[in-house]
Amino acid sequence: MTGFPEVRVAYPAWVGDVVDWGRAYESPEDRMKLAIRLSRENVDRGTGGPFGAAVFERDGGRLVSVGMNLVVTHRNSTLHAEIVALMMAESRLGSYSLGAEGLPAHDVAASCDPCAMCLGALLWSGVSRVLCGAHREDAHILQFDEGPVFPESYRYLEKRGIEIQRGVLREEARAVLELYRDRDGVIYNG
Amino acid sequence: MTGFPEVRVAYPAWVGDVVDWGRAYESPEDRMKLAIRLSRENVDRGTGGPFGAAVFERDGGRLVSVGMNLVVTHRNSTLHAEIVALMMAESRLGSYSLGAEGLPAHDVAASCDPCAMCLGALLWSGVSRVLCGAHREDAHILQFDEGPVFPESYRYLEKRGIEIQRGVLREEARAVLELYRDRDGVIYNG
Repeated sequence: MTGFPEVRVAYPAWVGDVVDWGRAYESPEDRMKLAIRLSRENVDRGTGGPFGAAVFERDGGRLVSVGMNLVVTHRNSTLHAEIVALMMAESRLGSYSLGAEGLPAHDVAASCDPCAMCLGALLWSGVSRVLCGAHREDAHILQFDEGPVFPESYRYLEKRGIEIQRGVLREEARAVLELYRDRDGVIYNG
Repeated sequence: MTGFPEVRVAYPAWVGDVVDWGRAYESPEDRMKLAIRLSRENVDRGTGGPFGAAVFERDGGRLVSVGMNLVVTHRNSTLHAEIVALMMAESRLGSYSLGAEGLPAHDVAASCDPCAMCLGALLWSGVSRVLCGAHREDAHILQFDEGPVFPESYRYLEKRGIEIQRGVLREEARAVLELYRDRDGVIYNG
């Protein structure tokens, strides 16, 4: 091989128009609204699957990063919304742990229950709370598989001090999944 | 925020000296030897944790990509060896699935049982086989947590047609974990 591949992960251009970086996202619902907005824009703009996520400072709600599913556009099966949001937050903060000493506590809002990969990634990221929107069963109607996630998977994270709050604005989050289905969106890894 | 972060993932320079891209890696043991070599070089060169991985064409053993743990150097908690190898393989092939129509079947050798995140990522990647070296218990002696992986997690992948072969050159693989411990390597996400 003459040159090595290099992987670059960048936001789609619409992020600049859609995301208000200056405001505080106070409540879990405020945070979830942004995650859902990102999932919807990603479908509307044709840049990926119907999933969004965002990382916040847990106290005060400063927005640190956003994420959206970039699997198809980046030709990269690992770029689920949560992975993108975590990578971008860590890049911005210059830390491989969002729970590192000297940093405030962080949480993540994800527009759908995280898949097995993302649940693992959330554990390694050092976040202190995960807010989930649509349920995994809602993703199943789209034939998106969530992978090997079991009730004890959630308990595993909780035992390590991560708070998990599911079903935040579930109906609004699910509506985007249905929108994607109605538009015959690509079901990668179905 | 004035500019958005962009994440770049690149191999350490030593990959060029260590990896023979031209030869065929025929047997599971040949493939695992490369994964273990990558884990050992990563420790020796001080570029990350004691984990290596590589993606091959399953028939014939052409090497497609390699991976090594880049969490600390890249300040990115998602960059486990398997994730790096999968991203690089997909980037090289221009496909978000290594099992896409028109591509040959692929397998992955990982120097240690994949953590929860990587097991999920392997499912989404479209590989047809996973070869594992050291056992998760071997990683535990280092206090590396593997996350919510259960016996049914493996069965979940197997039901979806992924063959899993564990304990390939386990002793050699474990020796690198011990080397890392003896050098007081950083236990990130411990």
